[in-house]
Amino acid sequence: MRISELSQRSGVAVPTIKFYLREGLLQAGRLTSPTQAQYDDEHLGRIRLIRALLVSGLSVVDTREVLGRLVIPPENVPGLLAATQQLLMPAEEGVDLSAAEALVTRWGWQVDPSYLGPLAQLARALQAAEAAGFALLPEVLDGYARAMHEVGEVEIANIPQSSAAEAVRYVVLGTVLMEPLILALRRLAEGDAAYRRYANPGTPAAASAVEPG
Amino acid sequence: MRISELSQRSGVAVPTIKFYLREGLLQAGRLTSPTQAQYDDEHLGRIRLIRALLVSGLSVVDTREVLGRLVIPPENVPGLLAATQQLLMPAEEGVDLSAAEALVTRWGWQVDPSYLGPLAQLARALQAAEAAGFALLPEVLDGYARAMHEVGEVEIANIPQSSAAEAVRYVVLGTVLMEPLILALRRLAEGDAAYRRYANPGTPAAASAVEPG
Repeated sequence: MRISELSQRSGVAVPTIKFYLREGLLQAGRLTSPTQAQYDDEHLGRIRLIRALLVSGLSVVDTREVLGRLVIPPENVPGLLAATQQLLMPAEEGVDLSAAEALVTRWGWQVDPSYLGPLAQLARALQAAEAAGFALLPEVLDGYARAMHEVGEVEIANIPQSSAAEAVRYVVLGTVLMEPLILALRRLAEGDAAYRRYANPGTPAAASAVEPG
Repeated sequence: MRISELSQRSGVAVPTIKFYLREGLLQAGRLTSPTQAQYDDEHLGRIRLIRALLVSGLSVVDTREVLGRLVIPPENVPGLLAATQQLLMPAEEGVDLSAAEALVTRWGWQVDPSYLGPLAQLARALQAAEAAGFALLPEVLDGYARAMHEVGEVEIANIPQSSAAEAVRYVVLGTVLMEPLILALRRLAEGDAAYRRYANPGTPAAASAVEPG
């Protein structure tokens, strides 16, 4: 297809597609004349991915780096995940990690050095709670840990094995796009849990409605 | 105590405390002379709460409204939660809620009209995933729902029953302060889950390490 059709089908303006080409985010088309090129479905898929990465807040440089990881063999999922993690949430200097480290050790979680970013975010969240005088009960923290480990397991189990490109796409987009979804579910679930516990104590826990199989 | 001691003990500057007084966020002290007032531990607790609310991104007007809810009887937890929810994530116009509504209906969740904000956030997240060509498998969505319902249950079960002030404080601060913590745990848990599944398949699931009691 020509660039005009690529623009129409992707919903991305021609000047933007040319910018992606210039920045090396999008692979060049096949030249059919000195001023015309043909594009295919791979270009279309790539444009959707580039757009999602940029919309998710990544810079052009980081987007280029994530796209470069499309060549990593998908069988090395922990490595792929760790590398993506470092790009999406880089380590921060000067954060006292001891309380966060004590927690993940207590839970027996394996934390690779690539996860210093999320570990620092956990540490800062613990400090913010303390500064606000918000008591974090161990049973609440352990409940969070159990629930989020379930989330992580479901996500890892569903990483597509078809190609490296699909695996990267899933990991990057899943990490970024699912954050607002998970937080929205938390608020809705709080409402349902409060309703069941206080407004209508006889109602069985809704969680049973989504038990597998 | 005098305002200078209140400032020292709270870590909030005197001009800021005076601003809280002027804005009606902080209750006046007991006048001991036309230009001097005495403050107590209730003022100290209130300052910590005001500061946490403002730091969490609430406007002065919304902070005043949240503080006004301190008079709501704490036994009505669903109402308190719904009112706080409306302030922290108000409903949005013009979002197609049908896909989000279909999900909460499938899960059997009770969604009060006060939760139109989180419902719209869920709807937008589903649309963003679709626009990016990110396939959301039903088993992944159901896994998210199960896990976040666990989070909600733990949170609701631990709402302090001692006073309305404490309940509001817990709900508001918990909603806002725990978001980065939960997201950090998700990323760390993904790393652990990937390690257990791919790098070291013999390791038992870490979730068992945090089973209750």
